[in-house]
Amino acid sequence: MSMLLLDLLGTFFFAVSGSLLAARKKFDVVGSLLLASLVGLGGGVCRDVIIGQGVPNAFAQPVYLLPPVLATLLVATRVVHETRVRRPLLLFDAGGLALFCIVGTITAHEAGLHAVSAALLGLTTAVGGGVMRDVVANEVPQVFNPRGVYAIPAMLGAALTVLTLELGWFGVVAGCLIAVFVFVLRVLSIRLEWHVPLAGGGTIRTNDV
Amino acid sequence: MSMLLLDLLGTFFFAVSGSLLAARKKFDVVGSLLLASLVGLGGGVCRDVIIGQGVPNAFAQPVYLLPPVLATLLVATRVVHETRVRRPLLLFDAGGLALFCIVGTITAHEAGLHAVSAALLGLTTAVGGGVMRDVVANEVPQVFNPRGVYAIPAMLGAALTVLTLELGWFGVVAGCLIAVFVFVLRVLSIRLEWHVPLAGGGTIRTNDV
Amino acid sequence: MSMLLLDLLGTFFFAVSGSLLAARKKFDVVGSLLLASLVGLGGGVCRDVIIGQGVPNAFAQPVYLLPPVLATLLVATRVVHETRVRRPLLLFDAGGLALFCIVGTITAHEAGLHAVSAALLGLTTAVGGGVMRDVVANEVPQVFNPRGVYAIPAMLGAALTVLTLELGWFGVVAGCLIAVFVFVLRVLSIRLEWHVPLAGGGTIRTNDV
Repeated sequence: MSMLLLDLLGTFFFAVSGSLLAARKKFDVVGSLLLASLVGLGGGVCRDVIIGQGVPNAFAQPVYLLPPVLATLLVATRVVHETRVRRPLLLFDAGGLALFCIVGTITAHEAGLHAVSAALLGLTTAVGGGVMRDVVANEVPQVFNPRGVYAIPAMLGAALTVLTLELGWFGVVAGCLIAVFVFVLRVLSIRLEWHVPLAGGGTIRTNDV
Repeated sequence: MSMLLLDLLGTFFFAVSGSLLAARKKFDVVGSLLLASLVGLGGGVCRDVIIGQGVPNAFAQPVYLLPPVLATLLVATRVVHETRVRRPLLLFDAGGLALFCIVGTITAHEAGLHAVSAALLGLTTAVGGGVMRDVVANEVPQVFNPRGVYAIPAMLGAALTVLTLELGWFGVVAGCLIAVFVFVLRVLSIRLEWHVPLAGGGTIRTNDV
Repeated sequence: MSMLLLDLLGTFFFAVSGSLLAARKKFDVVGSLLLASLVGLGGGVCRDVIIGQGVPNAFAQPVYLLPPVLATLLVATRVVHETRVRRPLLLFDAGGLALFCIVGTITAHEAGLHAVSAALLGLTTAVGGGVMRDVVANEVPQVFNPRGVYAIPAMLGAALTVLTLELGWFGVVAGCLIAVFVFVLRVLSIRLEWHVPLAGGGTIRTNDV
């Protein structure tokens, strides 16, 4: 039950990020609904297809359509809208990331996957939807933006989730702490412009990007 | 049997749209064959993977390779080619959309999915292949183009299909009527430049896009 | 056992191509690891999801994470790096292509697929990861580049694999010969700038692209 709520909340956060990107790209409300659904549901569908235990939740339970619909409405009525420095998109995306790395890891762990595999699938769930959103909107995915760290908080969140699950310590408190940790880490990394070394060696210079 | 024919016809329509896009992007005939296969078979493969009942039709039955091969040949020999205003691509795409929203919904319904889920999967089947085609060719997907409506006809077609199925009215006549309705709606929306409100509120202006 | 080694080697080759592309696009090391994983594991995950026999190898066996990690390290320390004419990326990509069209075909054949379907799935495995790599990095996939041939060597490799499997001739020697054949064909096609007719008829001119 609480897993469903967490999953729906994460879906909603990601869906808002999708609708905000749709607004920035001048898509219409139907495109907004589709992009919101893709980012909100895409990661979870991939996870469920990989686990291979029946029809993915997003298709089996119509309640999963509500978050994208709500997100589309909130953005279309400008209750949520982008400001000059486009922070809302990043914040909602960070919220989805924080919840999905936990929900994805738990789902994979419950399906009987190895601890490492469960964490990897949690990371895939968390990062997958956002990659689809950005690819479909013809942008380089945020996960590859060398300003700030994106995958590292999700990796840590998935690892902490699987660790506490294995130790029998996972519960509401642990889940909340991990989610807050991932969210704060992601947001701080954008604010403070953390970066890790570049793929080909060296580090980013201030004037790049 | 007639389902297979409908599916192959829809695959052919989408495949032609893929080969035409390959021609516009100056890909070679092998790229044309691959893009035709991706758009023609991609939506159905996603549908079958999500339903999760064995190997997707496109891989289990080699006859599904014929439509992409035929489409590639027709475009390479310029029997079908783009004119100034690139209408053929949009027409063939609309034909695929009209057939796939029906075939996809029926397949999902037969697999025992909930009515809402069946319609959603029908929409995914109809829209999925075209999104893959455009993403792989590095274009913003047509489904996000605010000129004309793309997903709405497919949504209506999927909804009508599931409704007539549930009521026991679905048959050849109903199927044909729904397909024609979706096709005409899509084509009219392009000709008459219908549009719906933008994702971030407001409407498109004449000079945009 | 030797299948696992071949698969890991192919994964490593593709992973290096992903890390090299990440370096060229100025992604950071985490992005490099993700792109290496996507290209190295993406094709195989698609293959396993389509075959539908349990959790894909890449998620079931954590050893599959080693090649992307190794590739990321080799590129980050500049042990492997791009030279002026960006040949290393193409060479490693050709190596992955040569091994994956064989491994993919064998896997599909062992799962009981029809000969044509097995070859098609082998082609999908070989080409799929590279397409994901290029799409996610916002480039037109190499498979659509009309300079050189990309899919044809993989098609021939998959066809030869399925042929020798059906005839009972497949073994270490046949596998090595096919891999070398695919690799050499791909590399020669780049060096000698082979091309096939364009999708819309006609051939590429020297000044194009």
